[in-house]
Amino acid sequence: MAKSVGRLFKVFQRLRSLTLIKTLLSHPSTSSPVGTFVRTIAELPSPFMLKPRDFSLPNSSWGPEMMRLYEHYNSQCEVETEDGEKREGPWRRLPSYNRLLKYATGGLYLSKMIQSKARLFTRNIREPGAAFEYVLFANSEQKRCVAIFQVGHLLEGPPGHVHGGAIATMIDTVTGTQAALLCGPVVTANLNINYRSPIPLGSTVLVESSLDKTEGRKIFMSCKVTSTDGSKVHTETSVLFLSISISHLLF
Amino acid sequence: MAKSVGRLFKVFQRLRSLTLIKTLLSHPSTSSPVGTFVRTIAELPSPFMLKPRDFSLPNSSWGPEMMRLYEHYNSQCEVETEDGEKREGPWRRLPSYNRLLKYATGGLYLSKMIQSKARLFTRNIREPGAAFEYVLFANSEQKRCVAIFQVGHLLEGPPGHVHGGAIATMIDTVTGTQAALLCGPVVTANLNINYRSPIPLGSTVLVESSLDKTEGRKIFMSCKVTSTDGSKVHTETSVLFLSISISHLLF
Repeated sequence: MAKSVGRLFKVFQRLRSLTLIKTLLSHPSTSSPVGTFVRTIAELPSPFMLKPRDFSLPNSSWGPEMMRLYEHYNSQCEVETEDGEKREGPWRRLPSYNRLLKYATGGLYLSKMIQSKARLFTRNIREPGAAFEYVLFANSEQKRCVAIFQVGHLLEGPPGHVHGGAIATMIDTVTGTQAALLCGPVVTANLNINYRSPIPLGSTVLVESSLDKTEGRKIFMSCKVTSTDGSKVHTETSVLFLSISISHLLF
Repeated sequence: MAKSVGRLFKVFQRLRSLTLIKTLLSHPSTSSPVGTFVRTIAELPSPFMLKPRDFSLPNSSWGPEMMRLYEHYNSQCEVETEDGEKREGPWRRLPSYNRLLKYATGGLYLSKMIQSKARLFTRNIREPGAAFEYVLFANSEQKRCVAIFQVGHLLEGPPGHVHGGAIATMIDTVTGTQAALLCGPVVTANLNINYRSPIPLGSTVLVESSLDKTEGRKIFMSCKVTSTDGSKVHTETSVLFLSISISHLLF
């Protein structure tokens, strides 16, 4: 067990992008050695099977615009057929934890063992509404992701406005998640952001990412941050990811 | 007074980049209307003249590498001439507050009046060592800025490593500060980051920015994030800023 944890830790030490681990942990049934280890954790007694808190569910800090958009997309995650049956809709809400480790089965347990104080940059503040409030929805048919992002007062750059780095952080998060969903393990290679107009603190904005093309290991994505009605463009971004194999990490 | 504050607030609402306000507030003697207002604040009684806490001074969380580099640059901020006199050295340590508003004379007072809960994204966590620990030094002759950056456990992306957005945030901060020092008020127009190798949590790294060229209103900067001995390159970035006039903000 200790050896397995040590090995997993070494793998993490070699991870090269935010997005890689997301995929790694969202595919616990992979036949790789990491997958085997994750299955071992899954066989542990029930206290280790607890689900971590999902930060992408509504809380009391969400304003009317955030709630309206959440309900708009969430209502399309399950649709009713003509004969009254419920089935999956075009959109899927993605959960969000305060460590990427927690995407693994048994992740809460892992999180207590490995650098237990560490927290995901976008989920490192407990006070609801103070920093990043966001929820991601994925549309696999359209190869699109949409994040609804409500900007808290702790993300300030120029007085009353969002820091450019906080916007870059959301862009990295949303495109990275989509690249990993589409192509498996990836690393971020390039982030090229054009800033068009500032975002006032307290705003709710949309962060939309889409796949442009793939060329061998290269995955080209685009991302726009806009006002919720789409009329104002805040940033336009192209991102390049590189697809990698899990085995590449182990040797 | 209330009218002046209202006007200043409107100015802030129109600011387009992190770096703009830094310059605005670091030039309180400018002859613009904002400068006039800042001078008015400077004439208020002493409670309004209190200096805010400078976050770029050493604290108990700074490790040996952070301290060694801090002392290396800090010792070059003041040099002794041959006849024993002390004078300014080639480097200058730049102060850092938890709101850009606080760069203004009377900034503590302003900060209590305008969106008082807001905090600068890189200084929004009170616990020393938990997030961004950094100090900037500027070398005006070489047109270079160096930040020593110690990465806290709340900046996690992949387990045990720094989030790409946290790196982008530091790059925006360092290049933006230098652009504003060199050219006055600027807005960030483009941030183009190549990620080369991941940064483990707890590391101390160097963030070095330099001016490439200016073309009219355009300011082209470069930024490298490396290990402290320079042997490992973590990111390479080009950034474009646009110079703007303060009067542009007022109408």
